[in-house]
Parts: sequence; C-alpha cells; structure tokens
Amino acid sequence: MKEGSGMSTYLLNDRFVKEDEITVSIEDRGYYFGDGVYEVIRVYGGILFTADEHIGRLYESASKIRMDLPYGEEEMKAKIEQLVKDNGIIEGHVYVQATRGAAPRVHQFPGEGVVPVITGYTKAYGQGAEPAETVSLKSVEDIRWMRCDIKSLNLLANVLAKQEAHEHGCYEALLHRGGTVTEGSSSNVFGVKDGVIHTHPVSNFILNGITRRVVMECCEELGQPVHEQPMALEDVYTMDEFFMTSTTNGIAPVSAIDGRQIGDGRPGPVTKALMAAFDKKLPAPVASK
Amino acid sequence: MKEGSGMSTYLLNDRFVKEDEITVSIEDRGYYFGDGVYEVIRVYGGILFTADEHIGRLYESASKIRMDLPYGEEEMKAKIEQLVKDNGIIEGHVYVQATRGAAPRVHQFPGEGVVPVITGYTKAYGQGAEPAETVSLKSVEDIRWMRCDIKSLNLLANVLAKQEAHEHGCYEALLHRGGTVTEGSSSNVFGVKDGVIHTHPVSNFILNGITRRVVMECCEELGQPVHEQPMALEDVYTMDEFFMTSTTNGIAPVSAIDGRQIGDGRPGPVTKALMAAFDKKLPAPVASK
Repeated sequence: MKEGSGMSTYLLNDRFVKEDEITVSIEDRGYYFGDGVYEVIRVYGGILFTADEHIGRLYESASKIRMDLPYGEEEMKAKIEQLVKDNGIIEGHVYVQATRGAAPRVHQFPGEGVVPVITGYTKAYGQGAEPAETVSLKSVEDIRWMRCDIKSLNLLANVLAKQEAHEHGCYEALLHRGGTVTEGSSSNVFGVKDGVIHTHPVSNFILNGITRRVVMECCEELGQPVHEQPMALEDVYTMDEFFMTSTTNGIAPVSAIDGRQIGDGRPGPVTKALMAAFDKKLPAPVASK
Repeated sequence: MKEGSGMSTYLLNDRFVKEDEITVSIEDRGYYFGDGVYEVIRVYGGILFTADEHIGRLYESASKIRMDLPYGEEEMKAKIEQLVKDNGIIEGHVYVQATRGAAPRVHQFPGEGVVPVITGYTKAYGQGAEPAETVSLKSVEDIRWMRCDIKSLNLLANVLAKQEAHEHGCYEALLHRGGTVTEGSSSNVFGVKDGVIHTHPVSNFILNGITRRVVMECCEELGQPVHEQPMALEDVYTMDEFFMTSTTNGIAPVSAIDGRQIGDGRPGPVTKALMAAFDKKLPAPVASK
C-alpha cells in the first residue's frame, strides 16, 4: 500500500478503484515490452503544478510511439485532479502511465480491439525529512536508446545508472555519451560558468523536462544568459555552479560531482536567484525551503 | 487465455497456478521500468530444445542487471519442464521472465525483502498454417540501447522496428546502426557471399542468440567458413544468400530485403545445408519442413 494513503484510490482506465481492485494482466504490453509512457506531476499545497504541460507531454510521448489513448487531455486532467482530491494529497505527486494494452505476446502492435491500459496513483510526501539543501552527482556513461525525448517505460538504463550513483553515495547519476553530458537519470542538469548557464539542447538525447522549461522561463524573465550547448564532462568539475531539475525536486543545487566540490559546495548566486524565481511560480508556498 | 490452452497452467514464482490466479502488481518493477529479463524456449515434439543454454542465458542476463533470482538453474529447468508437461505442449514454446520485484517506485534497486517475480507460460503452435518458406526484411535504423547483449524487457525499440517492418509487408526488421547491420528485431541475421557467411560478432550490439550458436556449431561441423564481421547495409542486397535465426523460427531463409530480391529469391545451397544440419540437432523431426 502507498505510504500515508490509507486505502488509496487508483486510476484504472476511466475508473477510480481501490488498491485491492487494481491488478495488471500478465499479457499487458507494459509488462512484456515496456511498451508505454508515463508522467509524474507534482502537487503543491493541494494544487497540481504544470499539469497541462505534463499531460500534453504524456499525449506527445504516446503519439511518438504511435499509441492512441482512449480519451483526451481534458478528461485525463479531470481524472488526475479527482485522484488528487480523493486521496487528499497536499504535498506529493501523481504518477500516471499508459501501456499499449493486453494481448498475446507478439512484438508488432496488437490488432483492433486492444486498448491502452491507463493506471495512476498518488504519493503523499511524508512530514519530517527535509529535502537535502544540496545533492551530489556521479558520472555514468549514458547507454540509453536514441529516443530519450520519449518518456517511456523502458527505464532499465536509468535504473542501473541511478543505482550506480547511490552505491557511490550520490543522489543522482550525471549521464554522458562518450564524455558529452546529456542529463541525469531522472533529471535535467545545468552548469553555470562566468555567469552563463550551460545545458544540453532539446533533442532526442534528453527528455525535454517540464521543470527545465519553467527554469528556462525564469532565465528569460531574469535576463539570465543560457547557452543550450552540450557540456563536456571534463568541464563540469570547474563550473562555478551546477544544479539539476526534476518534477519531484524542483531545482536542486549540486555540491559535488564525482567527489569533486563544485564552487564552494553551496548553492551559488545564479542557482539561488533561479530557485527564488521558481518558487514564485508554484501554486502554493513550499514550507520546507 | 492462451490459444489452445484450455485452462492453462502458469508459473508464478515457485508455484504453478491457473490463469485466473495470475496477476501482476501495479508496483512490479517490470511494469514501471521494464526492470527484468526473459527467455523463450522452443518445444519440438514435446521436448525442450537447448533448454540449458536458454536458462543459462536467463541467469546471465539477470546477473548483468545485477538481479539475483530466488532459485537456481536446475530448479528453473525442472519447473519449465513441468509447465510443458502440464500443458501438454508438443509443438510450441515456453516464455519465462523475471522482474526485480514489486516495490514503491524509485529508480534505484529496492531494499532487502523485495524478491524477483518470475512468471512463465506456454504457447502451443496451432495446426494449419505452415511457416512461410522464406521471409522478407525491411531495414530499420537500430536505435536501441548499448546493452543489446542483455535479453531485457526494455523492448520498445524492437516493437517499433517490428511494426515498421510489418507495415511494409515484411516479416522482420533488419536493424543497422548508421549503415552497419547488427541483427533483427527478434533474430540474428546472416549473409552469404562467395561461399562465406557474414554475421555480426558477439558484442554489446547484438543478442548472442541460442539458435545463432547452434548455427555456428553446424558451420563448424560442415566446414562452412564464417566471418564474424559486421556487414554494411549497402552490401546486403547483393549477397548470394541471406537468412535469419531465432528460437521460434529456427533458420528462416530471406527472399528479399527492402523489396530487393536476394539471389533467386529461394533458399540457396548454404542456407539449405545449414537447415538440414540444424534439423538433425532437433529433439524431434519437424513435420512442416
């Protein structure tokens, strides 16, 4: 059962069900092939943040793998809002995924009549543990496929990278393809050098993060220069500042990469200015910051 | 329900269960991340073919993603044999997969106490439709990850490639990375030119197919020269012969690639000699060949 959920409500296709009613078919193509897409949407003060952008990307990812969801974005949004309300989520997130449906196992798409399976749940963030003020990264070779722009359920490379980071005492993996930094295993990354932000351009090598988009907006509003150019791994260690972004973490300052301290190890002025600008965009103040 | 299965028996961890008892947890890491591995083992005349090799590779794949299965290869083999027997499979295959278990969704490995989930089923091949004498291929860019040597559940790129092939009226995709042929979406591929077989060497770019291994044995026994060197896509069209191998198809001669006929479009002498040698290794004669 989900933490802090009591008997939580789940989304199953177009219905709301209880945990004991929700099971997945062994023939679900999500289980055989990871043939599906997903989103995580943050809830601040009971209100979904950037829900339209996340739901838009869910349908975009589905479209990229040529999967038609059985209902549209508006209905999806209403269902997700209902889920948050039913489960009384104040601080937390919603997870929603869609697979190509359940059918006897063949690689090619199933025939007519097989419809995508949509599942969703909420997670309430516990009281207590404050998020760390800074995080550390471990560089890991990026061995993922060539369509990292699709938020798909094929996440084994991400899993292995995150695990490697954790085993080195780090919070997140800093992925690089042959020395060219792409992103984190579940985040985008940004370096600051001489007042300029560097980050990988939007392409098939990174996920176009929703938090990344909000940060780019903040940069524009602040007049903060951004070079959307890939960083070389060898250059990240001498950046003045470094930070990562994700739905669950917002902007997280990076104190060290591969054990080498970034700047003075604390959030720098550019990062702090962006964090302040980001916080102002949230639907509700974040108590813990 | 599986075709021709009546009320088929499934493997669920260390138990045999009926279809209505088998469900997957929404929190199964196979469903969230494709965090698991699998095998398909062919049954000829009621007998498993190269079962030790397949089961060995299952444990090898699990080891490569650092997953410890809850029981060993011998026990796995006994269970798979039991499944085949219980379901009365004469011609068909067994599918077995193992995921890292069910746990609240975080990328890194779950903590102690979370054990892999093993599921398995059989498929009986129907009477009637004879397998095609030859198959056609469609070239598709290979966009998979860098660990194609692991038989993992991250198969979305394979799914999309196979679908593209089918939409072009072809049986299988011929994958290539920037013009260098790797393998099929669920098969290995071989070209024959001037009496020499060409096929991609075993590396992280292909799955070391069990049928491929049997074919290599046959080549050795027949004194058939093999160059384990990648082929350029531009060179495959003028090969004298071409064939693909897989567990379910054995050796399948290729008549055309991208609509261009290979040789005279019929199985050539090298392919036929290998098919005859391969058939001799099967536990029971194949009626349909």
